[in-house]
Amino acid sequence: MHMGFRAPPAGRAAGSGSAHFKEALPRLCEAVEEADFIAIDGEFTGISDGPSVSALTNGLDTPEERYCKLRKHSMNFLLFQFGLCTFKYDQNQSIYITKAFNFYVFPKPFNRTSPDIKFICQSSSIDFLASQGFDFNKVFRSGIPYLTQEEESQLREQYEERRGQINGNGPITYTPNSSMSVSHVPEDQRAFIKTVEDKVEDLLKNSEKSVDLEPCTGFQRKLIYQTLNSRQSKGLHVETLENDKKERFIQISKVDDEERRRREQQKQQREQEELNDAVGFSRVIRAVSKSGKLVVGHNMLLDVMHTIHQFCGPVPEELDDFKEVTMSVFPRLVDTKLMASIQPFKEIIHNTSLGELHKRLIEKPFKSPQTECPENFQSYDTSSEQLHEAGYDAYITGLCFISMANYLGTFLTPPKSHISARSKLLEPFYNKLFLMRVIDIPYLNMCGPDLQPKRDHVLYVTFPKEWKTCDLYQLFSAFGNIQVSWIDDTSAFVSLSQTDQVQIAINTSRYAESYRIQTYAEYIQSRQKSTNTNRRWASDGWADTSYSAAAMMTGSGFSHGHSRQHSKKRSISPSLEEQNCNADSSWTHYCSVKKIKTDGDGSQAQADVSGSDGAVDWLGQQTDEGGSYPGQDQEEEPIRGKRNRKHKKRKSDDAETTPPPLFDVPQVW
Amino acid sequence: MHMGFRAPPAGRAAGSGSAHFKEALPRLCEAVEEADFIAIDGEFTGISDGPSVSALTNGLDTPEERYCKLRKHSMNFLLFQFGLCTFKYDQNQSIYITKAFNFYVFPKPFNRTSPDIKFICQSSSIDFLASQGFDFNKVFRSGIPYLTQEEESQLREQYEERRGQINGNGPITYTPNSSMSVSHVPEDQRAFIKTVEDKVEDLLKNSEKSVDLEPCTGFQRKLIYQTLNSRQSKGLHVETLENDKKERFIQISKVDDEERRRREQQKQQREQEELNDAVGFSRVIRAVSKSGKLVVGHNMLLDVMHTIHQFCGPVPEELDDFKEVTMSVFPRLVDTKLMASIQPFKEIIHNTSLGELHKRLIEKPFKSPQTECPENFQSYDTSSEQLHEAGYDAYITGLCFISMANYLGTFLTPPKSHISARSKLLEPFYNKLFLMRVIDIPYLNMCGPDLQPKRDHVLYVTFPKEWKTCDLYQLFSAFGNIQVSWIDDTSAFVSLSQTDQVQIAINTSRYAESYRIQTYAEYIQSRQKSTNTNRRWASDGWADTSYSAAAMMTGSGFSHGHSRQHSKKRSISPSLEEQNCNADSSWTHYCSVKKIKTDGDGSQAQADVSGSDGAVDWLGQQTDEGGSYPGQDQEEEPIRGKRNRKHKKRKSDDAETTPPPLFDVPQVW
Repeated sequence: MHMGFRAPPAGRAAGSGSAHFKEALPRLCEAVEEADFIAIDGEFTGISDGPSVSALTNGLDTPEERYCKLRKHSMNFLLFQFGLCTFKYDQNQSIYITKAFNFYVFPKPFNRTSPDIKFICQSSSIDFLASQGFDFNKVFRSGIPYLTQEEESQLREQYEERRGQINGNGPITYTPNSSMSVSHVPEDQRAFIKTVEDKVEDLLKNSEKSVDLEPCTGFQRKLIYQTLNSRQSKGLHVETLENDKKERFIQISKVDDEERRRREQQKQQREQEELNDAVGFSRVIRAVSKSGKLVVGHNMLLDVMHTIHQFCGPVPEELDDFKEVTMSVFPRLVDTKLMASIQPFKEIIHNTSLGELHKRLIEKPFKSPQTECPENFQSYDTSSEQLHEAGYDAYITGLCFISMANYLGTFLTPPKSHISARSKLLEPFYNKLFLMRVIDIPYLNMCGPDLQPKRDHVLYVTFPKEWKTCDLYQLFSAFGNIQVSWIDDTSAFVSLSQTDQVQIAINTSRYAESYRIQTYAEYIQSRQKSTNTNRRWASDGWADTSYSAAAMMTGSGFSHGHSRQHSKKRSISPSLEEQNCNADSSWTHYCSVKKIKTDGDGSQAQADVSGSDGAVDWLGQQTDEGGSYPGQDQEEEPIRGKRNRKHKKRKSDDAETTPPPLFDVPQVW
Repeated sequence: MHMGFRAPPAGRAAGSGSAHFKEALPRLCEAVEEADFIAIDGEFTGISDGPSVSALTNGLDTPEERYCKLRKHSMNFLLFQFGLCTFKYDQNQSIYITKAFNFYVFPKPFNRTSPDIKFICQSSSIDFLASQGFDFNKVFRSGIPYLTQEEESQLREQYEERRGQINGNGPITYTPNSSMSVSHVPEDQRAFIKTVEDKVEDLLKNSEKSVDLEPCTGFQRKLIYQTLNSRQSKGLHVETLENDKKERFIQISKVDDEERRRREQQKQQREQEELNDAVGFSRVIRAVSKSGKLVVGHNMLLDVMHTIHQFCGPVPEELDDFKEVTMSVFPRLVDTKLMASIQPFKEIIHNTSLGELHKRLIEKPFKSPQTECPENFQSYDTSSEQLHEAGYDAYITGLCFISMANYLGTFLTPPKSHISARSKLLEPFYNKLFLMRVIDIPYLNMCGPDLQPKRDHVLYVTFPKEWKTCDLYQLFSAFGNIQVSWIDDTSAFVSLSQTDQVQIAINTSRYAESYRIQTYAEYIQSRQKSTNTNRRWASDGWADTSYSAAAMMTGSGFSHGHSRQHSKKRSISPSLEEQNCNADSSWTHYCSVKKIKTDGDGSQAQADVSGSDGAVDWLGQQTDEGGSYPGQDQEEEPIRGKRNRKHKKRKSDDAETTPPPLFDVPQVW
């Protein structure tokens, strides 16, 4: 997701609307399978349900803090438009073939027992989308439904349970929390049930093939099923139908065994189709995940969080677990906002908002990529910029990625005008998601520990709630330029321009009554103390949280690693726990498929960088930050991840040894 | 609000859309002023954000419990369509003139400092409205904004503050929570401010009339205003304008005093208009409130709660306070669902859902009222039932009210075919709002204490969370028919058919380990204990909560009575407190206007019931429940309210003396 202002839409890409979805899905799967990379974008009903966005994004958040804030205050919004654009390079024509899809998604309740999702809307976000011509009718009337893995499992179980009941070969089970569950026939229903039993007796004796009972209540139907179940379901087929007046009634038919099996099979098929429809949009995400392809987004942290949260399962409490889950769903991510913010781009790109970035990347030294769109796909016209929808944003994001990737080729000897999405040159940008408005940590490192910038020039100041920024300027007026990052009404971080002033500030404040100054290190220490006391799991829990990047890459994947970890170290909410246990083989399957794909890509990538050994300036810079060297064996990555992880654990004991950050990201917001 | 299923809409009533609102408002005010009564209906984005609707509406809720649940779990939804239909009887033609309005409302943020409202959507509710053809684009793109009293006051203050600053005649104040507030010019801005000061010096010396500064940031503009303010605003007019590129810049003009005053006046006028636009839909509710007219709704408790919550101010914590607020906003309410559920209608009306009720009321012994709709108002066609929108529902609700009111006239000697909305015959139905799914309390009595049904045949049972309804049937199998009302996973009310079995049940349960049985009285007592401990105000707080019905009726109204009470007895959230303090004279004003209207209506009503002294069956029944006798002096009502209040206070000490309920409402859901 990105935030910007554009004109209202004038057209639609393929794939919108629930009715077209079934038709679009095979085309989408094909597009994903043949793609070199996939660009995505999401639109939400809001950003922050708690603090203002400025409080949500404190400039000195740690990555863990930021993740927790976003998880707590953003996940209750709905991702209701998902754009996806596939890009496939055509070697012969030297152009990219693009296929753009724009999906409206909405958690339409599937049946009476399916979850009735509640989501928050923020009026400013809704108003912004409205001003861009967003079609709310399309999303609410014909948005595509979706289910998480857990919800799908539950629904499947419901079907199986019901089937078992009707066949008379399962125990009588009760739907949880339904006051309708009965084994006992209430007094006032006994006469009614008796007449039903009589009718069935008659049917068994006479020559009719079936009997239609009178329309009755759901409770009565339940009683009838139960009664027939416990007696003589063998030669009978019992079915609920609807008459012209939309009233439901039960039809009981005499069937032989073969007919009964046939009907059951038909029903099972129908149910499987219903189930597929209910899983709906989640199948798109599963197809993308299964492909293992590079997924590109712009400022994509919230897009990734929402995508996983809605279509895979609730995002975990801890950042490290989120990273693990994300890498198992999307093994290769590139964030174009982050890419544009670091070397070698940051010197020549000054505004990294999507619209501005796209404008910049069609000018020198960049080159606008040539694209073509197959006939049956709606093409987007970038020159008119008439569209605002996720499909368009995904398309533009892909274009930006190609321009920047190709620019990297100009550093090679000889220069190359096309750089593949699988090129080793792109590895330094892999799996680093842009962190909005953090002063000294430009990105979340999805496949390893995060940067640990020195913050020894930062003070943590608490004060009366009447204080304003000007009071802080006043207080520190002797210290030259300062930077204030508000935390809440009564506290803020104050960054001094010179670290050696920190002790002076603290000394002068020692006897102050209205305010209090601590070093950043003291602040973090006291926070960690309070967090440790609040933790529900053993204090040695950290030792268990080994970052299983290796496991992830070798196919054990999301569901396994994740559930094992959780069940060991802490009590979690029942729903999450259940989800992890129930998670069927599909993700594991996706992961093993991914493994193969990744290997294939790896060799291709090596071919790509042949001749790029001459060290290029920006590559050197990247290396310092723990990025891959070109030519480094790809299989090393998991091991590196593990080593870094250990390093991180050490750091909390001895913060001083952490190397200073080498990044110097321009403040582009 | 009512819940039902109807076909998609085929037309629109007058008044929808923000653009048409300004034009519609005077017509609406006129319609309200001339109306005999006003019917309303609202559509929301959801019903319950917490428990399922069945848990939200336990059959044995006390009125206080129900109110608290609705307040907690329903107020976060948005009322986003408001229907209003005025009915005026034309004596000459013997028909009702109807004017229907259908408003889409949406809390579009007014400016950057205005509240960014978050609201919850429930997918089942959204899906239901979508299936009825609800136009979400209309609501989100051109919904009419609104403000509560408090929000309006805040906005007005903002304007005044800003005006004060610009005129240089107020203190420099800071917008709360804005990190932009400064008195100190930061180092890096000093050169910039110096150039501005130089330009102003030049302007004052040369013959130019004005100077345009370069476009600059909001922060810089703030600094400029501040600098000019503190020096020489007298002969200068400072204004922020926008250039072709939508960049903001400051224009400084030399003006004489008269010119400056003229400009200020113009600006003030513009601001007043902006303020009116921002108050938007709330003006409709104020007009209705000011009129003091009878307001009719169908199952209207949530409609009333939402209307007050969104357009007047947050609904109070306590039911009694809510009643007081409601009566000050809408002094006369009639709920057609309640009306249809009690005597003399309950025997002849078996389905009280709005659609079914309307169908019933056009058949004998009822008579469909004749209506006419003026030319410039869209008329609704009830025979095609093509519309589903709040305006249509309001219209239908009004028709139902008229049919039932006229039916009362058949009991008079001689019978009357038209009964005025002001007739004394309707008084027994005043201010009683239907309570959904409460077994033994049919309504919330808005102008006095609620019914206190005997519940000595009810048991409170707690048990392991694995238990289902069938386990409870099992447990009580010796006691004949029982009725189970689930409270949560581990508790339920069980109503026995015979009160004398209660002690037996309790005795037999004494040594049970897995479950526990208490009488309803014990349950209530233990609840009250725990509530008392949790209370933030003095335990003698109840003594303060004198129900000021009398005060309400004599014009002291909402803001006064309410804020006085609150500030005395408890700490409340700042926003609510502020609201009560800030509440300007408008509500009080409304109340005094209402007083006059009410008096006027009173005399008319007396004229109406002349000749109705022959006691009619249903009237007698009503009287037993504390309804008014026909011919009873209307001014007595407040006094009766007070007496009943005392009675209620006594009840908590001695529940046994409470008379048994006389109502016997059919279970129509």
